[in-house]
Amino acid sequence: MRESITVRGFRFSGVACGIKKSKKKDLALIFSETPAVAAALFTTNRVKAAPVLVGMERLRRSKIQAVVVNSGIANACTGKRGVSDAEAMCELVGSRLGIAAGLVFPSSTGVIGVPLPMDRIKRGITKAAAALSADSFSHAAEAIMTTDRFMKVSSTSLVLGGKRVRVAGMAKGAGMIAPNMATMLAYVFTDAAADADCVNSILRRSAEESFHRVTVDGDMSTNDTVLLLANGAVGNRPIERGSREAAGLLRAVSQVMKKLSIKLVEDGEGTTKLVEIRVEGARSGADARKIAFVVGNSKLVKTAFFGEDPNFGRVMAAVGYAGVPVRPEAIDVSFDRVTVVRNGVGLSSREKQAARVLKRPSFKVRIQLHQGKAATSIWTSDLSHTYVRINSAYRT
Amino acid sequence: MRESITVRGFRFSGVACGIKKSKKKDLALIFSETPAVAAALFTTNRVKAAPVLVGMERLRRSKIQAVVVNSGIANACTGKRGVSDAEAMCELVGSRLGIAAGLVFPSSTGVIGVPLPMDRIKRGITKAAAALSADSFSHAAEAIMTTDRFMKVSSTSLVLGGKRVRVAGMAKGAGMIAPNMATMLAYVFTDAAADADCVNSILRRSAEESFHRVTVDGDMSTNDTVLLLANGAVGNRPIERGSREAAGLLRAVSQVMKKLSIKLVEDGEGTTKLVEIRVEGARSGADARKIAFVVGNSKLVKTAFFGEDPNFGRVMAAVGYAGVPVRPEAIDVSFDRVTVVRNGVGLSSREKQAARVLKRPSFKVRIQLHQGKAATSIWTSDLSHTYVRINSAYRT
Repeated sequence: MRESITVRGFRFSGVACGIKKSKKKDLALIFSETPAVAAALFTTNRVKAAPVLVGMERLRRSKIQAVVVNSGIANACTGKRGVSDAEAMCELVGSRLGIAAGLVFPSSTGVIGVPLPMDRIKRGITKAAAALSADSFSHAAEAIMTTDRFMKVSSTSLVLGGKRVRVAGMAKGAGMIAPNMATMLAYVFTDAAADADCVNSILRRSAEESFHRVTVDGDMSTNDTVLLLANGAVGNRPIERGSREAAGLLRAVSQVMKKLSIKLVEDGEGTTKLVEIRVEGARSGADARKIAFVVGNSKLVKTAFFGEDPNFGRVMAAVGYAGVPVRPEAIDVSFDRVTVVRNGVGLSSREKQAARVLKRPSFKVRIQLHQGKAATSIWTSDLSHTYVRINSAYRT
Repeated sequence: MRESITVRGFRFSGVACGIKKSKKKDLALIFSETPAVAAALFTTNRVKAAPVLVGMERLRRSKIQAVVVNSGIANACTGKRGVSDAEAMCELVGSRLGIAAGLVFPSSTGVIGVPLPMDRIKRGITKAAAALSADSFSHAAEAIMTTDRFMKVSSTSLVLGGKRVRVAGMAKGAGMIAPNMATMLAYVFTDAAADADCVNSILRRSAEESFHRVTVDGDMSTNDTVLLLANGAVGNRPIERGSREAAGLLRAVSQVMKKLSIKLVEDGEGTTKLVEIRVEGARSGADARKIAFVVGNSKLVKTAFFGEDPNFGRVMAAVGYAGVPVRPEAIDVSFDRVTVVRNGVGLSSREKQAARVLKRPSFKVRIQLHQGKAATSIWTSDLSHTYVRINSAYRT
């Protein structure tokens, strides 16, 4: 998985500074040689971590030159002290790198309700600033991990206006993954130049098709952040919203974010199955999405996936309580190509065929409502013993 | 747990007819010597099992004289055949007991999407009709169980208009317990006489304080039913809505239903903890309830309970995504008497004291919002390995 990813004008580092008891890397630093045009999406949780509050403030100016992330402690539910700690992280980075603290974007992830050990963070920032290099992308990607089993990176390149530009991203997250980016941090970098409006629109449209379409446990974190930075190091003319180049960049960013979001589900705490929930024939995209997420978050559906049990009854029950007016007698359900419910009636004879589908590491549950033309897909995981083990023993 | 419960004018039986592979009791019959005034609440799931559709039809007349329940197969997602099977159950009971099929109320619980084995059901009804007796309450209560670890019954008595009347109930349910009575069957009987309007109002008000306040997994079933029968066998003058006697009967029915609903959570699949989630200082009861259920259904909160981890951060995160405008900096959270969050800030120093509370088999999580005067309590369970084991292996 350790691809050697570089993005012109960006330098990266990831170090261990002792926040995690495991001595693993827990502080990442990312630096752009010039201030980059930035756009970000944040958790919609009303309980927002201190770095999210500070990050939202930073984004008012749409320019970011450095990103500092610690893992192990979330700096959430830490009151005023939390906010000064997040600001202090930015000031420390600013003074080490010789840039304004206002150009530094902070993130934290980990346990909630514990203050940051600022002495360690300070030493970590000094160490990370010294370690910055163009080819340490994977070190930074490693340093943002918490319960993640594997590092999540993705990159692609494309030619825009005669110049080859790169788009690369890193993400962390395994639990608290829910629509609206729960417990997830993702940073996407491009060396293309684009104006603020264009970067903002590309981030929002890409998230709609990626991070907003995945769920592991339906819990939403206090710290979620997706940040897109475009530093223009390739020297192209800044791309404007609505242009042909913007469409190309959107495709590339969407592809990177889609790959990262699927990796989040694959690495969902205790995941043994990656399942696409596809709802078709809905009256609206909103209806399709609502049903898909209710099915994808149902504890009974997810334990059935883990048990490799083609329990279409639980799927039907979840469709029924999703709060969307459906006609049960019109619904068809299939697991990959095996139809298990037709016109609302279970086909017991397909049980063995369906059971074979459920043994696959990845499959699709298709729910056809026959009410309209809207369709959507989301990705979810199963609910396994390991999920319970990880989350009952996380802190103790 | 085997109390010898009797309710004047009612006879009960519970037999094994081979629907369950385990050979356990799987068919219950309840008979009232005279048609009883009836009220019922049904699942709000849009995918309704056949017996629910038939039961809703029966309730139009507000008179029921017999109840037949099979466990093992839910008769849901079974199309037209399912509806004729549910009606056939009523006809078989009617002809055995010499009453109209329209006075027979059917229920089923178990696996979805499989047709009922009507030959076995038929033999079971014959056997159950022959076994009816005044002191077989517990046999019927046993026959309605599926994954339940213990039988759930409760009874009380009170004097109304100089006559001692009894209220007794039985319930089943362990998974798919969610607000709105998910996967739960409950039958409550009284020998008091009351008019239809009064019975209906008592059932609705009691459910609001009992079955609508508990959750195990947040999944809502296709079969839920709560039925209240008042047969008037004690010979009192029929109680009218709004009278002093109605208030007395309401207290008794509420008490029985509250006890049954708490037993549902105690027997929640894999439950090792019974937890009251109390939300105080909310702007409205609806807000308090919304937050309480989001916290009580959070997989991360529930696994923390199982791990005996006083992880207030997960509670705060769930409060934040409940969709209610809260002021995080005003929130206090306590586990029993130990305050762990004050003014939105985690109190790490209380960690050890709080951990001792979590070791108790039952405790209260109190969330004070400081926004208004509304408060509510709901009851939930933890999420354990056993939940995953039961639900991943339920059918296979």
